[in-house]
Amino acid sequence: MKKLILDLDTGVDDALAISYALGSPEIELIGITGTYGNVLMEQGVRNALAITDLLGHPEVPVYKGLPHASTKDSFEVLPISSFIHGDNGIGDVAIPDSDREAESEPAVDFIIDAAKTYGDDLVYVPTGPQTNIAAAFKKAPEIADQLGSIVLMGGSLTVPGNVNAWTEANISQDPDAADYVFRHTKHATMVGLDVTLQTLLTYKETQTWRDLGNAAGAFLADMTDFYIKAYETTAPHLGGCGLHDPLAVGVAVDPTLVTVHPINMKVDVEGPTRGRTIGDEERLNDPHKTMGVALGVDVPRFLDEFMTRITNVARQAV
Amino acid sequence: MKKLILDLDTGVDDALAISYALGSPEIELIGITGTYGNVLMEQGVRNALAITDLLGHPEVPVYKGLPHASTKDSFEVLPISSFIHGDNGIGDVAIPDSDREAESEPAVDFIIDAAKTYGDDLVYVPTGPQTNIAAAFKKAPEIADQLGSIVLMGGSLTVPGNVNAWTEANISQDPDAADYVFRHTKHATMVGLDVTLQTLLTYKETQTWRDLGNAAGAFLADMTDFYIKAYETTAPHLGGCGLHDPLAVGVAVDPTLVTVHPINMKVDVEGPTRGRTIGDEERLNDPHKTMGVALGVDVPRFLDEFMTRITNVARQAV
Repeated sequence: MKKLILDLDTGVDDALAISYALGSPEIELIGITGTYGNVLMEQGVRNALAITDLLGHPEVPVYKGLPHASTKDSFEVLPISSFIHGDNGIGDVAIPDSDREAESEPAVDFIIDAAKTYGDDLVYVPTGPQTNIAAAFKKAPEIADQLGSIVLMGGSLTVPGNVNAWTEANISQDPDAADYVFRHTKHATMVGLDVTLQTLLTYKETQTWRDLGNAAGAFLADMTDFYIKAYETTAPHLGGCGLHDPLAVGVAVDPTLVTVHPINMKVDVEGPTRGRTIGDEERLNDPHKTMGVALGVDVPRFLDEFMTRITNVARQAV
Repeated sequence: MKKLILDLDTGVDDALAISYALGSPEIELIGITGTYGNVLMEQGVRNALAITDLLGHPEVPVYKGLPHASTKDSFEVLPISSFIHGDNGIGDVAIPDSDREAESEPAVDFIIDAAKTYGDDLVYVPTGPQTNIAAAFKKAPEIADQLGSIVLMGGSLTVPGNVNAWTEANISQDPDAADYVFRHTKHATMVGLDVTLQTLLTYKETQTWRDLGNAAGAFLADMTDFYIKAYETTAPHLGGCGLHDPLAVGVAVDPTLVTVHPINMKVDVEGPTRGRTIGDEERLNDPHKTMGVALGVDVPRFLDEFMTRITNVARQAV
């Protein structure tokens, strides 16, 4: 069975990504590594522990990752992130703290160990900045070839960014790390705004979870409604919220959900377009392509999988 | 038979585009409309008349188009354009002036008349700025639906630009015109740097033309060698020159040469990325796509068609 590591800055759609992974019998979630972005790393780890507990999966270990980009001294949550995900990252919905603590092994070491242990069977899904995986690649360069595959949520190739016209939020937090990963990965699939803004959720779907009548369903519905409401302000033309992080998990479980364009990618790290994900013109004619960028997505099938899997998980939670 | 209008700022690759069109029995070149970019509009018209004469096709009428963007008062050739195409636009190779003059009908009116006359049978191929076609769309809005299709050389979606990191040269000359066309066209295929930098020509191929031993072959070889030499400075990683404009003609003749990504496109007209061609996020989920962006190209097949067609035309010229 495929092994999955989720690398999360646990906000709303990260919580949905955890739920999707727990509802996917094809794959074993062997750990969650914490990063920063939607929230501080510490808050994201707190959320991941609390959510796995609430969903009845306290067996999933959570690891603390790096708290900021290697090019910076610290990280502060942007006001727009709090607006979209709430101050606590999960739509300002209160759920109990876990009794558990994060593991003592640092996230970077856990990632390295898992790549060596599971090799081609490991799928690593970062849905925030690429800081942890870049650090792992630098600490143990051999894992770039050992790690089975990366399916990342981040970037945009054929549509504008969501931080500004050229930068997507996850990549913008640490463009240098993402560029390092893009240039060193054996194979990565980029699940960016090109497809995640096509997979939209509305209040109609969240009501299904509320109707379950339990704590897990109420949490998922209330948290996601907060997120949909933010989208009404930030992207009113969409008519719903983008399912960014869960789509990456969906693709990790079943790559046929998307059509990908094979390409060698880079991230602009200098100049006015710093943070843009774009094809590397110097490797345009290299026939060996190390990445695939998802440009098409089977929206009805993904939404069906999304609702079925997450609703099942919520139903089975106590 | 399909009718073709080439809208050219006749520099080196525009000259190759004319040659490719004249060597394509599937399509009738009913006129060349002049624009500015590689050279001034007047110089491009002069070149188009001289080249069609040299290639033995004085029956092709040439029309004068608009000499600068509607947002500007004038146009000056950039030093980089002279470096790549030569001061005279055709690699500083001297060929006789034509005895003919440009037609008296303005290019914009010719385009409108042709769209009304030929409808779905007309393919319009602009390989410079979109100034003429945007003006035609504004003067006679009904032709946006009447004109069969547009196959444009310009822009870049998955690779950086060639003027700066985000802008391709043709689009940069008149981003507002290109944005207008992208938002109003019934169907356009964008043949941009994504594919044209994959189709490379080297000195080996140009020698084939020189070996023909006639004036047309010598002209094509000498002109193109100038262009390849410029590429050794501007893009040494490529190992040849990009066949930008002829690929657009190739796609107009045979759309199966490329694989296209269906998408609704726009051009950034404001902000730091002015001149960037990118998907329109507000029409991302509109199932009706008005453009196709070429992302893949059958390089060996195109190069074979390119050499066969152009060599035939040059051989048959007196």
